[in-house]
Amino acid sequence: MESVKDLLVEIKEKSELIVDLAYSALIFDSEDMAKEVESLEREMDDLVYKIRIKTMLAANNIEEAEQLSGILQVADAAKNIANAATDIVYLLDVDITMRPFLPSIFSKADEKLHVVMVSDRSSIVNRTIGDLNIEAETGVRVIAIKRGKRWIYDPDGDVRIKAGDVLIIRGTEDGYQFMERVARGEESWD
Amino acid sequence: MESVKDLLVEIKEKSELIVDLAYSALIFDSEDMAKEVESLEREMDDLVYKIRIKTMLAANNIEEAEQLSGILQVADAAKNIANAATDIVYLLDVDITMRPFLPSIFSKADEKLHVVMVSDRSSIVNRTIGDLNIEAETGVRVIAIKRGKRWIYDPDGDVRIKAGDVLIIRGTEDGYQFMERVARGEESWD
Repeated sequence: MESVKDLLVEIKEKSELIVDLAYSALIFDSEDMAKEVESLEREMDDLVYKIRIKTMLAANNIEEAEQLSGILQVADAAKNIANAATDIVYLLDVDITMRPFLPSIFSKADEKLHVVMVSDRSSIVNRTIGDLNIEAETGVRVIAIKRGKRWIYDPDGDVRIKAGDVLIIRGTEDGYQFMERVARGEESWD
Repeated sequence: MESVKDLLVEIKEKSELIVDLAYSALIFDSEDMAKEVESLEREMDDLVYKIRIKTMLAANNIEEAEQLSGILQVADAAKNIANAATDIVYLLDVDITMRPFLPSIFSKADEKLHVVMVSDRSSIVNRTIGDLNIEAETGVRVIAIKRGKRWIYDPDGDVRIKAGDVLIIRGTEDGYQFMERVARGEESWD
């Protein structure tokens, strides 16, 4: 059962992340983010396939099969959430005439989503997200980092912040204002 | 266009909230929360119907219709997200044998979701969420309040906290620890 649990937790977390990222892709009009959403959806398909196999192998009798069917129902729902989120980013594959208002509609609505650029003068350069303990210290969560042409989504604690990083953060207005000053090197982290 | 915008923002926000609530209903094994998810899904259906009518009336030529079609695509995707989220809570309508592991699997995984009971000795009793500025001050967000048999979801700033309220909060561990002490009356808010 252990790995069925791990798979289900991963499926749940990816289904939440993909909704966040899909709207973010639209708000930032970012084809790179859209590609990551599509790649997350493929990972979800793999995970759901794996959990189906594992649950079938785990069920030895009708009672166990009934218990495990609930897990499959959640997994399928999470997969459908991911599919629907991906429909949002397909808009970015088509002509821009279909989405002229969308970034401005949503960016005004979602006041908790911000973009912060890390200057080489910032005191957070070369420190890890976990070491800084950003979420606990500031109330904002780093949902993605754009580094050159590459994106790092839902970064782990061991990811080290570099000069030039673009951080996509979600959180309180105060937390954002602080992160903005720190990232510009106008205020020290400590 | 103004009301199409407002409708779309409401649709986006409800689609994010419903995913959060659906998993929460499972974690807390709460039929009340499940009923609210189902009611949110019906509200989504109404909103999507309204936005279809509004966009059709707003389009005067093929160019405008193309621009508006992107809005319908996002609204449909949000509706599908809500439908999928509702599939998760249908598990709560059926026999408990289908979901014996689920609350424990997810509650261990989602360390950011907590339940806090407000004692009549707490200094936050009779103060509003907006006045306390809970999210900015503590880094935790109140996602729902259970008051007697009633649930208040995604409470606005003018909601006043009462003795006996059960707060469902999401946020940092430090923020949760603080809220827990304050709710028990062991520490003063100010």
